This record gives sequence, structure tokens and C-alpha cells, in this order.
Amino acid sequence: MKRKDLLSKPVQQIELQPSMSVNELIKQFESSGSFGAGRLATACDVFENMVRDEKCTVLLALAGAMVPAGLRHIIADLIRTRLIDALVSTGANMVHDLIEATGGHHYKGHWVVDDYFLYKSHIYRIFDIFLPEEDFVKADKALIEMFDEIANANEKHLFSSSELMQLIGERLNDKKSIVRAAYEANVPIYLPAMRDSEFAYIHIVHSKRTKEKNAILVDAFKESSEMVALMERSQRLGMVVIGGGVPRNSVQHAALMADKGLDYAVILTTDRPESGGLSGSTPEETVSWGKLKRKAGKVMVIGDAMISFPIMAAAVLERLGKDFERKGNP
Amino acid sequence: MKRKDLLSKPVQQIELQPSMSVNELIKQFESSGSFGAGRLATACDVFENMVRDEKCTVLLALAGAMVPAGLRHIIADLIRTRLIDALVSTGANMVHDLIEATGGHHYKGHWVVDDYFLYKSHIYRIFDIFLPEEDFVKADKALIEMFDEIANANEKHLFSSSELMQLIGERLNDKKSIVRAAYEANVPIYLPAMRDSEFAYIHIVHSKRTKEKNAILVDAFKESSEMVALMERSQRLGMVVIGGGVPRNSVQHAALMADKGLDYAVILTTDRPESGGLSGSTPEETVSWGKLKRKAGKVMVIGDAMISFPIMAAAVLERLGKDFERKGNP
Amino acid sequence: MKRKDLLSKPVQQIELQPSMSVNELIKQFESSGSFGAGRLATACDVFENMVRDEKCTVLLALAGAMVPAGLRHIIADLIRTRLIDALVSTGANMVHDLIEATGGHHYKGHWVVDDYFLYKSHIYRIFDIFLPEEDFVKADKALIEMFDEIANANEKHLFSSSELMQLIGERLNDKKSIVRAAYEANVPIYLPAMRDSEFAYIHIVHSKRTKEKNAILVDAFKESSEMVALMERSQRLGMVVIGGGVPRNSVQHAALMADKGLDYAVILTTDRPESGGLSGSTPEETVSWGKLKRKAGKVMVIGDAMISFPIMAAAVLERLGKDFERKGNP
Amino acid sequence: MKRKDLLSKPVQQIELQPSMSVNELIKQFESSGSFGAGRLATACDVFENMVRDEKCTVLLALAGAMVPAGLRHIIADLIRTRLIDALVSTGANMVHDLIEATGGHHYKGHWVVDDYFLYKSHIYRIFDIFLPEEDFVKADKALIEMFDEIANANEKHLFSSSELMQLIGERLNDKKSIVRAAYEANVPIYLPAMRDSEFAYIHIVHSKRTKEKNAILVDAFKESSEMVALMERSQRLGMVVIGGGVPRNSVQHAALMADKGLDYAVILTTDRPESGGLSGSTPEETVSWGKLKRKAGKVMVIGDAMISFPIMAAAVLERLGKDFERKGNP
Repeated sequence: MKRKDLLSKPVQQIELQPSMSVNELIKQFESSGSFGAGRLATACDVFENMVRDEKCTVLLALAGAMVPAGLRHIIADLIRTRLIDALVSTGANMVHDLIEATGGHHYKGHWVVDDYFLYKSHIYRIFDIFLPEEDFVKADKALIEMFDEIANANEKHLFSSSELMQLIGERLNDKKSIVRAAYEANVPIYLPAMRDSEFAYIHIVHSKRTKEKNAILVDAFKESSEMVALMERSQRLGMVVIGGGVPRNSVQHAALMADKGLDYAVILTTDRPESGGLSGSTPEETVSWGKLKRKAGKVMVIGDAMISFPIMAAAVLERLGKDFERKGNP
Repeated sequence: MKRKDLLSKPVQQIELQPSMSVNELIKQFESSGSFGAGRLATACDVFENMVRDEKCTVLLALAGAMVPAGLRHIIADLIRTRLIDALVSTGANMVHDLIEATGGHHYKGHWVVDDYFLYKSHIYRIFDIFLPEEDFVKADKALIEMFDEIANANEKHLFSSSELMQLIGERLNDKKSIVRAAYEANVPIYLPAMRDSEFAYIHIVHSKRTKEKNAILVDAFKESSEMVALMERSQRLGMVVIGGGVPRNSVQHAALMADKGLDYAVILTTDRPESGGLSGSTPEETVSWGKLKRKAGKVMVIGDAMISFPIMAAAVLERLGKDFERKGNP
Repeated sequence: MKRKDLLSKPVQQIELQPSMSVNELIKQFESSGSFGAGRLATACDVFENMVRDEKCTVLLALAGAMVPAGLRHIIADLIRTRLIDALVSTGANMVHDLIEATGGHHYKGHWVVDDYFLYKSHIYRIFDIFLPEEDFVKADKALIEMFDEIANANEKHLFSSSELMQLIGERLNDKKSIVRAAYEANVPIYLPAMRDSEFAYIHIVHSKRTKEKNAILVDAFKESSEMVALMERSQRLGMVVIGGGVPRNSVQHAALMADKGLDYAVILTTDRPESGGLSGSTPEETVSWGKLKRKAGKVMVIGDAMISFPIMAAAVLERLGKDFERKGNP
Repeated sequence: MKRKDLLSKPVQQIELQPSMSVNELIKQFESSGSFGAGRLATACDVFENMVRDEKCTVLLALAGAMVPAGLRHIIADLIRTRLIDALVSTGANMVHDLIEATGGHHYKGHWVVDDYFLYKSHIYRIFDIFLPEEDFVKADKALIEMFDEIANANEKHLFSSSELMQLIGERLNDKKSIVRAAYEANVPIYLPAMRDSEFAYIHIVHSKRTKEKNAILVDAFKESSEMVALMERSQRLGMVVIGGGVPRNSVQHAALMADKGLDYAVILTTDRPESGGLSGSTPEETVSWGKLKRKAGKVMVIGDAMISFPIMAAAVLERLGKDFERKGNP
């Protein structure tokens, strides 16, 4: 390390242009290279490299209430165009996709509000989003019927979460749905904590209605074997994390079990390293475990993914251009 | 709301005494009532009320790397003395309990370190904790053997996570172990994302060794029915959250499915509300869903639970006194 | 509050378009309206309203190392075009403007680095920015000479910070400089903690060189009277905060002293309310003091201002169009 | 760096004892050594070393609304016993000390409240603290009178902030007051942004009442020379930071100007490094500037100082024992 090497790249002051595109602004962030702006610019580069790498399987690890808040169509589109090859999600995000797929809606609300009034009004709150109970109930009903139908249509009753999501996707009509898009694009949806969501309630009602023995079951471990197999078949691995939690950990742990470190990692989170949780752990910490390669393109952008993810996606789509096609992996 | 009612309780300045006890300091925090100090004092009150309530089932929702970092014995003791009636945890925390129960250790490390050197040295890093690979391997081996043995010893092969944890607890010798303490105290351990942990790897190896058909399976949904049943049997419900994520959501969702709001809630987290995730959602937001009662004792303390949880436990144990006994619920 | 009013505006899922402009993306954020995306969209609206209001004096409160990191030219341009009518800053941001104005540079560095090596190499670090000592020294030298010259050229020796900044701006050649732009555009720069910056060192050397009696002095309170007078002359007041600290508090307190609440407020910060500091206090808390009007357009966007400020500025410039002209206030 | 050296100190699980003292709990945190608990334990060690070092001048840098919230008496006591040799504060904290010294109070309030109702009720809110306007007015009145009296009693009219605070302390009767304690213990109070507080309003009224020429003035830079001189007279330097902002920066910059790095640093803050601001910068970054010595005892505890500061103070007072006496420096 020589002094002059440390002083070789001046910070270039950001210049705004009239009606600049998202990617043009990100290029200015790259010129600055500093603080969050620099990291967000790096995230765009790493995501671009990931999807341009024809041998890379791209996994999106999705936590947080991102589908209610507005990322549903972006994610569905990225799946259809195979910029994402596998989705690892909380159960809740898929439930909220299915609420919209079965005719329900989320509503703009507010966080300064009388929550007991909402309770009495049968409105659920997700920070500044309101969700009417009846839309939840409508989705429950539709899904319980699908569970019943799947139970009747299949000899087998012990599924992995991804098999079950595929069978649900098959039964949807909504073109904008993530679950439908994944079914059509043959992209697996892994739900490592599927049971920690409305699917648990759907399962309970379905089990009671069905003769117990005929009820659908989910084999908790089966999907982890599927993820390991997918990774073993892949030449390279890329991970985009929104939030953290179980989805992030599942991807990283599968890479370890497949004896393959990730080659690319973009982590968009509000969490921080110093309290020791997985969600806030740095890419560097991940290297110590062998879950992420030392030379991987890697970056962690601390901030609300409702801002950073659409920006990153818009910038990279702009770079790829209209004619870009991706075959998908593995 | 009258003006004078808003100005009825002066903030009392904190006074330090020589060699004051933890609870004496918390009582000073209560006198101040402000900012984090006020919320931590309230958390002690709510936790005290929860455990003094003989009809309340107390659930601890445990996320974050808390067992490696030092909360193992506190949690085991709270389970033995039935100040905790049920544990809902990430898989990883129980794996780390079992690493220590099978002779392994976690080591004091540092976060400013060459992670690639650690990787080459087979040392895993959890922020400022180091864990040698061989201790992980030793636990893997012991647990794979337990899985084999459980498969041979039982007719039934499809378990819930809590049944499996009980069978593991039965096979441990370590008095300090959380899993052992839970077995002895008949406290269920629910792992809603059990598969998102080293248990997945253990299962893979066990399955390959065993004739596939003989392998232990985990029914993902079974444990959610158990949690609902436990809550239905309970007169009142209290929740202490360390971190958030799947453990917190599972407890709250089970309360909803059992058609019972929680009566007490203490949430110790580093997460914040404004990015919309469940982990950072306020107790008030939880009221809108009916998961938490409007009149519940409830508080959220933002900060590192490695600081706030031991302080709260120490203060409440001091208040309860040596002779306090709790029968446990439900 | 009726139920159906709470459920009147569905969250619209964000749609990405090829090569969309920054403002087009912000419009999508507005459609979603949720979490950080919704607040950032609101910030653009409030800032747009502020600058379109011909009777509004717009104050930028600037903290954090934003000039080294890349906001220098944006701020200088906003001052030149009078989208900003007054700047209230930390001393350091102006010092870093002057370092660049006197030929120095900031360099792209990294935060994982041997800081003692940097120390021995005479390189100062600001998170991931490196600054060579010699560029600081060069600026010191130039500024000490300016202080000497100002002392010789003026009868008066007791200045306010804003008077002194004007005298410095007069002596600069760099068109890109904030201090120069402010001088040319007749925009005052208030530095309520001017002495908490390299200006303190410059003053010490200048005082020693000059016969003590001839040294420039800064009257700490004079500038607060100037700010109050500016506000009294203004019909309406708008505030944009980057960071918080003394700059934010000074603006708010001046509004109180001028007996005028702010009419618009955009707060871009990484700070949070719950630990009680001014920097993280909500716009609502500010209303209780009378510093911000109840009906003011107001929003707080939690996140790195190196991301949010350029986005907001780019979106609003796009909305205003090339031909927009602003006369400036008061 | 050898592998076995990295694995030499096992994390010891925290054990709670009945009625343990604050320091006994901190000793358990030291045994764990992990995450926030480990850093808080280190903070106690560094603070203990600082005050046991007879040649060390201890400076407390105080930001945040800590005096309203309850740290007033602790700080006053630490000043009286000369565990603190100099106080560098925001203006506001001293104003709130003086509000209590002149008979006013702060009240326990709440953060979920109608702020416009508070405004109409003449109640100011500081997160969950309420402050009646009349108590502010009472303090204003008393202080304006003191300013008038000081102006009349002194030939000199151009003061540093610390000289002025001493003259105010001289005029107080309240034994519990920080400003009074500092006067009695001959501990300087530096207010680098004095003008960014109610002192600005007090000055305006005082100036109008007094014949302008007779009004008290504050020389902004004088106090920085005083701080540099104090540091030059000191053999070693210790800094405890509550919050950050101008107080932290002033101490660090004075050390640089005095050509002395700090020997001890404890930083208690809710801020984080990655957005590049001074308040969240790590002790390591501070080393690159030469403001903190490489071998200094140093630690940053991220979290609410209303929790961490009283704990640290209580633990260290317990360690020092009743008979400990400190002469004070320099």
C-alpha cells in the first residue's frame, strides 16, 4: 500500500442534468463513490454483472413487507425475464401476492392513527398501509379451496414449499402475480418459513375440512435439499437480499451445504452489524464462513429497500437495454 | 385531556448510589421515565407483571445470535424456573446451544479482522465471536447420531419441530443447556424455521445414511397447530421478544389464530418501524391486527438485547426475590 | 374518520419503464406511497412547492460530510439559481468547499483500512473518503492570508459568521464553490458553530501573526439576529435539512424567535426520534414548539442524504423545467 | 496472527445472581465480551482508567436532550467530585439545567400525542418529555437579568462562552445545578455553539434593553483557544462522548490543534459510521486524523446514552469505592 495509490481517484462532485435518467444519476453516484451513494452505485454494478453472467444462477432473498408496499410487479417482471432464477421469500410476501391475485388490495394509510379504531374496523395496518380483513378472508377462502383441490388431484401429499407454490401458481389467472410468473417461468419459490404466515391458518382449516389423512403436508427439510441441488447444478451463484432474516440465511446456508461460495452478493437492508444478527452481518463476515467468495462482487447498502431496490432495478434495466435476453439458470 | 394532567409528573433526575443493585438503577430510570431509560423501566414492569400473573403463559421469541453471545444460561434458568413457559426460536440459537452441549465453545474475537484468513483457518465469525469449524463438526456428528437413534427408536417418523427438540433434549447431559432445561421443565421449543439452520445439513446427512424411508421428517405445519392449541389452553398470554423475525411473527400469528390477543408484550429490538418490516413494527401496529390487546402492558425497547435483556431479567429476579416460585402455564 | 375513507386509495404497484427519468421513478414511488418510497416522493412534492412559492424563503440546513462526499456542485447550483435563499451549515462543510476552492481534493478511499498507516501517511479519513494533509494545509494558508487581508482592509473587526463568509467568497475564483456562489447570488451563509471547525485554527494563527488587537473576531450572537431579521422580512419560510444538529436547530429556533412557524419542511436524516435528540425529532414534535406550522407541508425521510438529496433535487429540477426562474427571497 | 491465539478466550455465558449490583452485571458482560454487552463493559474499563489516571484531564462532550431526560444530577456530581474536568456541551443542555435551577420542571409525557394540542396549550415536547412554556419564560427572565447584571458589573464585555457560564454559575443557588457545580469546582463549561440555543433569545432581549454598546458579547473563537490551552497544560486527555455533534468534534479538534492525541475515548451514541458524519465515526477513523492515539483505550457503544451512561457511571463509582478522591486536572 503506497500513499499515492491511496490518493489516486478524486471524489468527483455530483452534477445534475435536466431530466436525467435513473442510470445517469447512478453514474454520478459512481463518480462520487462516497457513503450510501457509492455503495448504491456498486450495487448496480454487481447486479448488472450477475445478470450478464450467463452461467450465474440469481437468487432473490425477499423479506419485509415489500409486496404490499409496491415491489410486486417489479419482482414478477424480473422473474418472467429470468433476471431472477429463484425466489427465496418469507411466507407473508407470497400471501400478499396471493391477496392481490385473488382480488384484494392494499391501501395507502398512515402510521399516526388510532390502531384500536382500525382493529374495530377490521383493518390491519402494515406501517402506513391498510389492509381490509375481508380481502384477507377472500384470499384464505380461495387458497383453502386450492389446498383441497391439490389434495384431491394428487396421489402424493407430502410436498416441499416450492412444489406447493408451483401447484398454486398453476391455479392463478393474474398475469401480474409473482407466484403465477414463477410458475410460468419455471422459477422455484422457496419458503423456508412457510408455516410462519397465513399458510398456517389455511393449512389448519384445510386439514379440518379434509379427512385428516388426506390433508396436504409440507416436509420442512425437502426444500433445503432442493436448494442445495439447484446450487450444485449451478456454475456460479448470485444473491440479491432485500431485508435479511430467514431468506438471506437460507440462501447463504444452502451455498455452504452445496460447498460453493456465492460469486455475487447485493444486500439491501436497514439492519446493522454491531448487534451481531445475521440480517445485519457484513459481506466480509459471510466470507469467513465460506458462504461468499473472497473475490465475489459484494456490497451492502444500508437503507430502505423500497427506495434502493427499484432504483437498482431501473438502472440495470437501462444498462441492459430493451433487447437484452437472459436464458436463465441453472 | 387537560393541560394540568399533561404536567402532573415531573421527570425526576437520576441519582446514583454507591453499589446500587440493578433494580435500584432501574427504579431510577423509572423516576426519569424518559427516552430509552423510561422504556427499559417499563419493560421490567411488564415482564414482572407477566410472570407474577399465575394464569399467564409466557412465551420467549428468540432471534439474533444471542446464545453464542452469552444469554444461554439466563434463558436455561428462566425455563427451569418456569418464568418462561414456551420458547420460540430461530434454529440457529438452538444449534449453538447444542454446540456448547456437545463440548464446543464460542470465542471472543473481533470485528476488525481479515475474514479470508479466518476462512482459511476454519474459523467462522459472528460479529465479534469466533467459532472453530471443528466444534460445529462435532455437534453435527452428535446430532446426526441422535437423529439416527431417534429414527430407530420411534415408530413415528413425522415430527413437529417441538417434538424433535424434546427428543433431543432427552438425550443431552448438559445441565446448562437450554434444550435440556426445556426437556426437564416440560417447556416446548418451537422452531418455525428449523430447516433454516444447521439442522438442514444434519437432516441431509442423516437421510443419506438412513434408508431414506426410515429418515426423520419434520411436518412444517404441525407445530403451528401445537402453538395455537397451547394458546387456546392459556388464560392469558405474554410475549417477550429478543430481536424479531420469524419467532416474533409466529407468536403473534398463533395468538391471532387462537383468537386471543396477547395480554403482555415486551419487545427488545434494534429494528425500527419506518421501513415497514414486522420486526420493527410497534406494539400499537400489532393492536390493529388483534394480535395484541389494546389494554395490554406493552413496550418496545430499541437497542441491543445483549444489554437490555440481562438487565431486565436481573431487575425482575431481584423484585421477585429468592423464594418466588412459579408453577408454569398453561 | 369513516372506514371507507381509510380504504380509498389503493397502493399502486411500482412499474419500471425503460430508461425512465428520475422524476418518472419518483412518480411511481408516489403511486406506491409506502414506507421510504412514499416519504421520498412526498419530500419531492414539498420541495417543489417550496421553490414554486414566490414568497417563500428557502433555507438549507447542512450537516454531515456532504461537501467532501459530492454535494458541492449541486448546492452551489441551487444557490446560484436561488432555489436556496440561505445556507445554514456546519463550519466543516464550508472548510471542505474552501479546500477544493484552493486547489485541494478529496479522494475515494475505503472504510476497511489501517488507520494508523493513514495517520503516518498524513491522510485523514472521512468514512470512505481520504484527504491528504497537504491539501488541508494549503487551504489553511490561503485562508489565514485572507483573514489577514480582511483585517487590514476593514475598519471593523467584529463580524458575524455570515459577514465573514461573504468577505471570503469575494476573494475566491472558483466558480464551482458554494462560498463563491453564495457571494455572487447574495445568499447568506450562516455558521452557528463556525468556531467548531478548521476556522478555529485559522483564527488562532491569524491572531498570533496579526497584532492581537488587529485580529478579526466573530461575534457569536450577531448572526442569530441576522437570521431572525431575515425571517421577519420573509412572508413564508421553507427548510430543507440534510443531517440535523446545529444547522437544523438554528433554523427552527430562529423561526421561533421571529415568531413565525415554518411553512414547509423536508428533513433528510439517518437519525431517529426515540432517543430524544433534536436531529431525529419528527416534524410533529416541531409543531408543538410552534417552530413548524400545523398545516405545513412536512416530511422526514430516514436514510442517507447522499442518496435522497440528489434524487430529490433531480426530480424537482425535472419538474420545474429548463425555463424556470426564481427571483429569490426575501 | 496464529489460529490458536484467535481461539484463546471462550465467551463465558452470563450468569445472573440475586440482587446483583450494576458492576457485578457489567463484570458478567465482560465475561461474555460480545456485541453491545462487550462494548459497554469495555466502556466501563476505559472510563475507570481515565479517572484513575491522575494526570488525565477528563472532558465530557454532551449532546442530546440528556439534562431534561434525567442526567442532570449525575453530571453535576461527576463535576463536583472532579471525575469530569471540563464540560463541552450544546447550549440547550445548559439552558435546561438553568430552567430547573430557576424553578422550572420537565414533565413525563408521551410521544403519541396531538402536537397541535400541545402547541395551543403552550407545552413544548422533547420526544416523551413535556415542558411548559412558562418555565422557559421564567428562565429567560432570570437569565436576561443576569446578563444585564453581568454587563453592569464588568468593565469587559467580550467574553468567551466559558467565562460567561462561570459568571452565571456564580449567580445560582441550586446545589444540584450543573452550571453551579462547575462554578464551585472550577470546571470550565465550553459551549461551542452557545448561540444555537435559548441564549440567543436571551442575548437579543438583553441587547435591546441595554444600551447596545453596553451589551454582553461572546467572542466565538476565544473558547477554542482556551480549550487548546487547557489541553496543552494537560499531560493526558480523556474524552467521554454522549451523543456527538459539535461537542464531540470540538474536543477532538482541540486535541489536534494542541498537537496531542486523546489517550482515552468512550463514545456513547445512536449514530452509525456508514453515512459519513462525524457523530457516527469510529474511534479508528479518529486515529487517522491524529485526534486519538493509536494505543488509546477506546470504544464506541451504539445505543441510547440514557441507558448506557448511568450504567457506566454506576459501575465505575462502585469500582472506585466511597473513599476515592480525585484532585482534578490539569
